[in-house]
Formats: sequence, structure tokens, C-alpha cells
Amino acid sequence: MTETILQVPYGTRDVLPGEASARRQMEDKICSLFALWGYDEVATPTFEYLDTFAGMGQPGAGAFKFFDRKDNILMLRTDMTTPIARMVATRMRKDESVKRLSYRAQLFRYEEAQAGRQCEFTQCGIEMMGAAGAAADAEVIALAVSTLMEAGLKDFNITLGHMEFINGLIEAATLTEEQAKDIKHCLIRRNAAGLENVVEAAKIPEQLALIFKELLFLHGGIALLEDMQKRVLSRRCWNALENLREIYELAKAYGVERYLSFDLGLTRSLDYYTGMLFEGYAAGMGYSLIGGGRYDNMMQRFGKPCPATGFALGIDRIALTLERQGKQFVEQPETLFIAYGEGKTAEGIRAACALRKDGKRVKLADRAMTETEMQQAVQENHYSTWKYIG
Amino acid sequence: MTETILQVPYGTRDVLPGEASARRQMEDKICSLFALWGYDEVATPTFEYLDTFAGMGQPGAGAFKFFDRKDNILMLRTDMTTPIARMVATRMRKDESVKRLSYRAQLFRYEEAQAGRQCEFTQCGIEMMGAAGAAADAEVIALAVSTLMEAGLKDFNITLGHMEFINGLIEAATLTEEQAKDIKHCLIRRNAAGLENVVEAAKIPEQLALIFKELLFLHGGIALLEDMQKRVLSRRCWNALENLREIYELAKAYGVERYLSFDLGLTRSLDYYTGMLFEGYAAGMGYSLIGGGRYDNMMQRFGKPCPATGFALGIDRIALTLERQGKQFVEQPETLFIAYGEGKTAEGIRAACALRKDGKRVKLADRAMTETEMQQAVQENHYSTWKYIG
Repeated sequence: MTETILQVPYGTRDVLPGEASARRQMEDKICSLFALWGYDEVATPTFEYLDTFAGMGQPGAGAFKFFDRKDNILMLRTDMTTPIARMVATRMRKDESVKRLSYRAQLFRYEEAQAGRQCEFTQCGIEMMGAAGAAADAEVIALAVSTLMEAGLKDFNITLGHMEFINGLIEAATLTEEQAKDIKHCLIRRNAAGLENVVEAAKIPEQLALIFKELLFLHGGIALLEDMQKRVLSRRCWNALENLREIYELAKAYGVERYLSFDLGLTRSLDYYTGMLFEGYAAGMGYSLIGGGRYDNMMQRFGKPCPATGFALGIDRIALTLERQGKQFVEQPETLFIAYGEGKTAEGIRAACALRKDGKRVKLADRAMTETEMQQAVQENHYSTWKYIG
Repeated sequence: MTETILQVPYGTRDVLPGEASARRQMEDKICSLFALWGYDEVATPTFEYLDTFAGMGQPGAGAFKFFDRKDNILMLRTDMTTPIARMVATRMRKDESVKRLSYRAQLFRYEEAQAGRQCEFTQCGIEMMGAAGAAADAEVIALAVSTLMEAGLKDFNITLGHMEFINGLIEAATLTEEQAKDIKHCLIRRNAAGLENVVEAAKIPEQLALIFKELLFLHGGIALLEDMQKRVLSRRCWNALENLREIYELAKAYGVERYLSFDLGLTRSLDYYTGMLFEGYAAGMGYSLIGGGRYDNMMQRFGKPCPATGFALGIDRIALTLERQGKQFVEQPETLFIAYGEGKTAEGIRAACALRKDGKRVKLADRAMTETEMQQAVQENHYSTWKYIG
């Protein structure tokens, strides 16, 4: 036997009975919620041409790549927003109405695997395409909160930021492209010292430099936005803050504002965001459970310019968080075991069929057995209810 | 824009709104049925080490292959039976009880794509491990019939064969391994002329040669089994026929016998079958919709010898068959559209939230609009019910 025949590849895992059905139930609940909010499920291929992903700041360095028979490079999808944008731009090209789409999908990224970060993982998510205003972003955020609640989480927090705030600062400071990239890199890594170095070297006006240096610490409630609106000098930054305020006001109508706070230095490693963006965290999990935002420039790349906003959540991380918080998110339905004696197989079958017709979960013995053998099977399998047809 | 940015890879496709939810509903119904029969869902990685699949007669010629960072060869799974066998042999090694497992999964095979045969496709299926008798095979066949009915199919037929019947004939004829391989190859391709040539060349006793030549035409009901039991000289063949008779008798107790017929030349391209095997066909689809059988030798390869039987069905093919038969397998739930006038966004949100709480599917307008604009949106989107908050 070779070494790898019994193993699963690095960063992947088997999901055993019990856990698999618990996860399925959680996914079903989440997707039912998406449907209730008017989001229609779609599906895309598990792999795409590398070209489809290239240029979206997803260089494919972390992607599993392979060739088709015509030597095109294929890759296992690392993200669902890009394939859905491609799909809408091609298959729904002439449809100008607002589209609400949802998905659940396996995604793949070559990473250092650890609890909460695997090379294969499941995402559920939604995309709203064709809607530019704050109401669309508020809907997305409210649905994100509702989704985490539906999954069974109680203690979680969603932090909101805005790419236009950061881009507005960069514009006001007239930074070079290289400097802007360095700043964003420091923000993603939450590297305060690095950020300070870049700002020092860039010779930015004092007041602006101060905001840059504070960026990683601009956390707070709605008052933070008001404070910052007084401090910023750029119209672009002010508008971003105003947009966040507007979104927050609408979130109040949804009744979800208590889950929200602001983090004006928030950026995400997927660099397609253009407006508000957010991440959700819960106790017991160092990685974000959910993340999303507005990405108004992506569709253009596929030939159908159109504003868009959405989010994705990691099913594996949520399941792990619930487990760490000691929360069981499913009840296993009771299973009835039916055993039968020699020559009674047909009777056993008919009894099982009748009970299943009534919606009862039934495991039927795979062979005739004595009552003693049945008792043994009941013990081994921890059946709570059984029936013997002798 | 490069050529492939807007395209999906060869043999894959997008599944649009409507179709995606219809398929999801069908899968959900099927998986609920599996649960009702006591099968527990499991999941395995989308890709495996090539080693795991190698040696199971799945040479990987049709597999999508790539490398991990340690230069191990990985492949997108082409089949679910092999990964589940690996999983049970490793993760449930010490569990000697009968296991009933189910799955739904994306599978991948590099094939000439056409309607009903794609490079990526969805399978649902079940495996029963640890049960050797006819009752287990009858359960699997009865569940296969119930599954096709649950999916909405009416006119379908399941043909049953037996590997031991074919292997018994090969043994009786003392064929070489090469000749046996040729015979099986002709059976898979349903190549009667080729079969006759192989048999002629092998110089097999007349009566046995006759059976070989007839193999592709040994179709019929239960009477066929009785006829053949009189004709065969080998105990192994006789036992295979007796096993099929026994399975058929139990299928009667399930009330599914009218869907069954026999095809004693039936073989399948997956060459791990060792006992009864079957395929299901329906009008409007040239490919099998469902297939399975007994595979008692596979688990041994993973270090845990254990009898096993099961089946898999192709969701894409079933959906296509239903479409071709003009059957709609879902009703789209009604969606209510709520629009609101200037300054009424919060009222609109609260109305939507209240209705969703009552389980109503609601799409909320993404911005304030006039009643005229609402009427336009209603027309464009074919909403059947709507509400305006002015």
C-alpha cells in the first residue's frame, strides 16, 4: 500500500455522520433565509479559466491550478463573487433589473492549514447586482446579521469600514501608486509600525498624516463617524462617512444596529471592494466568519458595468465557532430499528415501508436475527427505539 | 479582454436562477428519502490523492489531475464510492456495525461533453457497508426505485445483472485473463460481433459458447432466471442466478418488482463490482440515470475487508430527463415586491421584516421610487404581488 492511499490531501478533511447532517441543516436554514429575502440560488463550475480570476487582485498564487486538454490554465475557484459576476455579465447580459443571487459552494485556497483555515471550505453567500444606493448596502448588512443569528450565533460583532474613506485619504495625500499599495498592505496586516514608516517617508501634511497613523485604531460607534466628518478635509472622505451614516440609519430600521461598529482602517485581502465593506467576528474564532462589501468596478471588467454589493460566510468557521461555544446546532431525529426473525424478512420490509410512509426514520436489519442478536445490535448502535418481528 | 475570461471551462456550465432552486429541491427530496431509510450523510474532499483511486480500475485517464506542493498527484474525484470506502476504512476502522451512508457531491471526468454528459456533474448516492446478504441488495434496489419516483420520474426501468454470473461463465470456460478482459470490454460496449469473435477464438465448449454469444440478449423477467438456472452447468453461475431470484423476491415485499427486469450481460465501466449490479433508464435519456451494485472487494484494499453495496444517481441527467418529458418538478414560491416612496425607506424595511417573519418571501425595492416606477419594476420582473408604501 502506498503512503497516500489512505490519506486525504493536505488541508482537506472527511465530514463524518452527525457532523455532516448538522452542517447540512445549518446550510439549509441559511439558504432558506436567503430565499425569504428574495435571493435566488445559482451555481457555477467548481473550476474556472485562470483568466476569469486574473486581474481581480487574485493572482492565483494560492490557487490550485491545472491544464485542460487545450493547455488553457484552469483553477479551482477561490471565491464566488468573481464567477457570479462573470455569469451575470454573460448569461444575464440584457437584464437590467436588480438581481439578488445566492449560492453555497466549495472553495479552494492553498494555505497553511489550521483550525478554521483549510484548503477546501464551504461558503454560502449573496450578491445584489444593479443597486447603487445605501439601501442596498443596508439590506446586505442586515441580512448578514440575520444569517449569523439563523446559524445559531449570539455573541458576534460586525465591523464596517469604507474603501472610499481610505482612497479619499490616499488621494488627498497625493500618494504614488506604490505608496498607496504599501499603506493598504499595512492595513491588511494590521501593521501599525509599518504604516507609520510609510507615512513618515511619504511626507504627508501633518493633520492628514495623523489620520493615517490612527487608521488602525479608528474603532467605535456612530459618534466616531461624526467626529471624523469634522476632521477630514476631503469631500471624498466626508462622503464615505456620510454613506456609512446613512447605511447605519437604515440598519436601525432593520433593528440590527446593536451588532454593528465601525473600523475605518478596515480593508480586505480581496481587493475588489469600492465602497462600504465589513467583517463579522465572534468569540472563540480568530478568523472572520463573514465578510463582504460593495464592488462597483468588477462587472465592468466582464463587459457589463453595474454596481454590486454582497457577502460570503464560512460554514466551516461558523460550525467550529458554535462547537467551541458549546452550542449544538441540531437535533438528530430519532431512528427506529426494525429486526426480524428467520423467515420474516418480507414482514420486516413491509413494516419498515409502512412506517417510512408515515415519515418515520427506519433502519431495517440487513438479515434475519434472533432477539438476542437484535439486543446486541441495539447496544452497539445506540438505537433508542426498536421493534422485533418474530 | 482575453478569449477565455467570459467563458466557462469545457464541459461545465452555470446553473441559473429557477433551475438551480429546482435542482436543489430535487436533491433535498432525495436526501430526505435517504435519511428516512436510515442513511447518514457524509462528505469527503473534492480532490483525493491519485493513489487512493489508482488500482480500482479507474486509471485516472479521464481525471483532472494536478500537483500539491510536495509533488504528490491529486485528482478531482471521479466517483464517490472509493472516497467513502477510504473514509470508512480509516475513520471508522473499529466500527463493525452495518453502516448506511449517503452523500451528494460534485464529480469530475474529462469526457466528450454532450447533453447528459458533462465534465462536472452532481451525484447523490448511498453505500451500505458490512452487510453481505440479499436483503441488503434488495434494500438498495428498492431505495433506488423509490429515489427515482421521489425525483418525479414515472416511466423508468431498472435492469439487474450479476458479476458472478459473468465471472462464473469465464471460469467455466477457463479463459485467460486477456480473454476475460476482452469479453468484458465487449459487454460494456455492447459489441455483439466483437463478443462472437472473442468466443470463437477462445474455443469454448459449444453450449457455454452459446451462452456467451447470447449474453447481450439475455433480457427478461423472473422466468429468464429460471430458464438459465436449467441451462448453466457451473455452480457459481447457478448461485448468482439464485441470488438474483432471492433479491427479486425481497423486492416484491418492497412492492417495486414492476420496475425491475434482468440483463445477464450487464457490466459497468466501474470495474469494482462483485455481485448483483444494476442500472436505471428512462425514456428521453440515452444514459443511465442511476447505477450501482455490490462491491465486496474494495474495502479490503483499504485494509478493512467488508462486504458493501450501494448506488449513485446523476442529478443532471434526471433533471434533463424530467425537462425532456415535459415535467416541472418544482413550484416557485410566490415573491412579494415591496416598494416605497421618498422618505419612506424605514417603513418599507419594517414592512418587509414583518412579512418575512411570517415566512413570506419578500423582495424589497433597493431605493425609493414613484408608483409609476414601481409598476415598471413589477412588469420587468414579472412580480405577481406587490405593495407600495407611499
